[in-house]
Amino acid sequence: MKRLLLALLLLASTLGFTQSTIIEQARNYRKSNEHALLNEFMGLLSIPNIVYDTVGIQKTAAYIMQMMEKRGIKAELLQPTTKGAPAAVYGEVKVPNATQTVIFYAHYDGQPVNPNQWAEGIEPFKSVFLDASLEKGGKIIPAPKSDEKINPEWRIYGRSASDDKAGVFSILSAYEVLGKIGQQPSVNMKFFFEGEEEAGSPHLAEILEKYKDKLKSDLWVICDGPVHQSGKKQVVFGVRGDINMEVKVYASKRPLHSGHYGNWAPNPAMLLSKLLSSMKDDNGRVLIKGFYDDVVPFTETERKAIAKVPSVDEQMRNELGFMRAEGGGKTLVELINLPSLNVNGISSANVGKMAANVIPVSATAALDLRLVLGNDAQRQAQKVIDHIKAQGYYVTQNESITDEERMRYPLIARVSVGKGYNAQRTKMDLPIAQKVIKAVQASTNEEIVLMPSLGGSLPLFLFEKYLATPTITVPIANHDNNQHAENENIRIQNIWNSIETYVALMKM
Amino acid sequence: MKRLLLALLLLASTLGFTQSTIIEQARNYRKSNEHALLNEFMGLLSIPNIVYDTVGIQKTAAYIMQMMEKRGIKAELLQPTTKGAPAAVYGEVKVPNATQTVIFYAHYDGQPVNPNQWAEGIEPFKSVFLDASLEKGGKIIPAPKSDEKINPEWRIYGRSASDDKAGVFSILSAYEVLGKIGQQPSVNMKFFFEGEEEAGSPHLAEILEKYKDKLKSDLWVICDGPVHQSGKKQVVFGVRGDINMEVKVYASKRPLHSGHYGNWAPNPAMLLSKLLSSMKDDNGRVLIKGFYDDVVPFTETERKAIAKVPSVDEQMRNELGFMRAEGGGKTLVELINLPSLNVNGISSANVGKMAANVIPVSATAALDLRLVLGNDAQRQAQKVIDHIKAQGYYVTQNESITDEERMRYPLIARVSVGKGYNAQRTKMDLPIAQKVIKAVQASTNEEIVLMPSLGGSLPLFLFEKYLATPTITVPIANHDNNQHAENENIRIQNIWNSIETYVALMKM
Repeated sequence: MKRLLLALLLLASTLGFTQSTIIEQARNYRKSNEHALLNEFMGLLSIPNIVYDTVGIQKTAAYIMQMMEKRGIKAELLQPTTKGAPAAVYGEVKVPNATQTVIFYAHYDGQPVNPNQWAEGIEPFKSVFLDASLEKGGKIIPAPKSDEKINPEWRIYGRSASDDKAGVFSILSAYEVLGKIGQQPSVNMKFFFEGEEEAGSPHLAEILEKYKDKLKSDLWVICDGPVHQSGKKQVVFGVRGDINMEVKVYASKRPLHSGHYGNWAPNPAMLLSKLLSSMKDDNGRVLIKGFYDDVVPFTETERKAIAKVPSVDEQMRNELGFMRAEGGGKTLVELINLPSLNVNGISSANVGKMAANVIPVSATAALDLRLVLGNDAQRQAQKVIDHIKAQGYYVTQNESITDEERMRYPLIARVSVGKGYNAQRTKMDLPIAQKVIKAVQASTNEEIVLMPSLGGSLPLFLFEKYLATPTITVPIANHDNNQHAENENIRIQNIWNSIETYVALMKM
Repeated sequence: MKRLLLALLLLASTLGFTQSTIIEQARNYRKSNEHALLNEFMGLLSIPNIVYDTVGIQKTAAYIMQMMEKRGIKAELLQPTTKGAPAAVYGEVKVPNATQTVIFYAHYDGQPVNPNQWAEGIEPFKSVFLDASLEKGGKIIPAPKSDEKINPEWRIYGRSASDDKAGVFSILSAYEVLGKIGQQPSVNMKFFFEGEEEAGSPHLAEILEKYKDKLKSDLWVICDGPVHQSGKKQVVFGVRGDINMEVKVYASKRPLHSGHYGNWAPNPAMLLSKLLSSMKDDNGRVLIKGFYDDVVPFTETERKAIAKVPSVDEQMRNELGFMRAEGGGKTLVELINLPSLNVNGISSANVGKMAANVIPVSATAALDLRLVLGNDAQRQAQKVIDHIKAQGYYVTQNESITDEERMRYPLIARVSVGKGYNAQRTKMDLPIAQKVIKAVQASTNEEIVLMPSLGGSLPLFLFEKYLATPTITVPIANHDNNQHAENENIRIQNIWNSIETYVALMKM
């Protein structure tokens, strides 16, 4: 009898029965402790964490260390070799008999804010509850009293509510809940919370290199970004790379009266318009020579996964309010798996109330290139530079153009290129990848989305380069979270779901 | 003997001898009073006069009224019928035995300023002296002490230093100097200083109509704009018309992450670039249908005058620092006698330090169309709108786009069109025009330039329409004055020359 039971238990475990029981227990625990959980989260949100604000960053790190200590995790700071750069918050939990080690990553810094751009009554660091999203007419409501039921469709508004304090909170809460229901993780656990992801992780390499031994693991699980726009949970195996460029086109040395010189003196805004126009066709296809070369094709597994990604194109067009997408009929998921060229902004003289009848002296475009596996960031940027040259431009890196250059070249552009980084993709067939898929799938009744690569970028290549360790991203936020922009928010149900996802991952 | 002397004096007067004596006396008076003259000018420059700043405009008007009273001219405000709109400052001087009446016009309002765009140490309304133009390496110098010699190549930097407080100052100073050297004007004089020229003179018509009788005259002399780029004085018989447009292209409702949606969601900066590009070819020729229709050709006299205008194309290219002009080989003077389309500014999201990896929600271009005789402002703007529609755009005038519009039209542009006004040209053969030419020629040893039309614009058609009175423009500023832009300035020698020009005109 005992043997049979044991055999059944083993079988149940293999089939995920134990896992779903644990998830149910976790859910029940959460349901009885929602107020306490949210209180801690609101405390975390109240600390300014703008990536360039050293004091706020340190305070946020200190709060997270307290959260860890409360859970019995010894917390420490991993300082990069560059003095003054933000430290990562680190801790580890050794599990008896565990054979694998997983590092759970999130970042605690946030994007800069312009409080004037936020909706009335919503401040970046005085988080508030809304009864729905602003776009759906949501109104600010008082924080729920301790005996009040919390509606999971409510949202919390504040900087980093989604990106990525929610990540830090979900990881630590999942670990806490696991303990509360009397369970141990199935893997050795390490916690790594970065403090300058929003600045492009300029010192992450230093930390990874310096703490190479401490950071040994079988897998990094990255908790950042949104779940699929269909609302389904997703597991993401890679990210695109990214590199920023700025193109500045020069004309006259001084602004000119448009009546006295218009249509004789060159107009930099028009020159820039023509230059940008030359880069893409009307369907958004990039016309730069070789732009789509170098791309490593998807594996069979990846292709199949992509084919199964639910289409959200129509839903998103409706939500975002445009009739026709770029791409000449290609789908969103196809397009985010290609290299891209996007204009982040353009500027020349003034418009609106500040507009004047002048010919501007220069015109500037900020571009970002997203890269897929096979692209090299600098090589991709060079293709853009070569294209600009092929349009007849003299290209320089200098901000000030000499008189000699001005009289020698009919078209002059200054192009500056950021450091950028390459794409990264973890193979979906790896045994540990399969374990992650199973764990996340066990935490939900809906079929999860397996995404070979996110459209967005994270410097995940660093983990490969410095630690030779694979990364898998398991995002948690609602897709309409206004990440990076004003009115950032998280839907409460997404927090609850994230705890269950990460409980499952800790028991994978 | 007495008779002979009298005859000689009469002859001298006819030959302009008396006029040049008077100009010499005026010059001598100026030379002994340069500090006092500039002090008053600097006082005028220190008053903010941005055309949309009601308080500043009123203060500027009050200062000018004081200047007039100081010269014994009774000053009054001519209020337009529209309440709250800027008034014109007005005064008159009756001259015994004078048979003709000339109104001297300048405007006291200035273009908007963005102080951040001005050079370090130079503020729009805290005028400073420089020892040369910024472009020639000029440095800020202390205001000259009362015993210090004033170098006429120095410049004064500040908003409206040239455009057009210099006009107000020159007219009033010429009148003052004339009195100081014991001379009376040869014509009845009226002074008319407008307060909203830089906004396109929206209420000038009201004033002209309301004060029709008061404003009776044989000629308006307009003191605005620069002398010829060759440095020669010029008399200008017409102006181009002008109309402003703003084109705003819409994409998603909210700013999007460029990684998750880039190259799928439409990019308004790219759309705007393509739209602007479609408006002109690489030589700057406007491709909008019918854009060059309606143009009234020059008369024989005008054609001859144009042929005599010194070529400044190469000089200006060198000075402005560009190798190739627009126009496919046409000269500057030819091009400013054609209708033009100029991009005043473009803007979408941010560039530089504020740039973020987003897809912007909209992109805006400010345009101005210059018009020549025969063009109608609204008809010309309509051609641009028709062109935008022909590119597939749905064009609206509303700032907010409805969801229905968003889902119905693939391309959406908001186009707003200013009131604008048409070109005007006075016949060079009119007897009073010939008198003006002679007077200005008498004030200089160099041959003056006779220009049938300025490239720039003034609402001179109004004087023709409401008062049936010809206008002739006699500009005074250095051509490199940065009119309408940051770092506006005037060369001191141009102020001195302007006093002599206007003394001559008051004795014409």
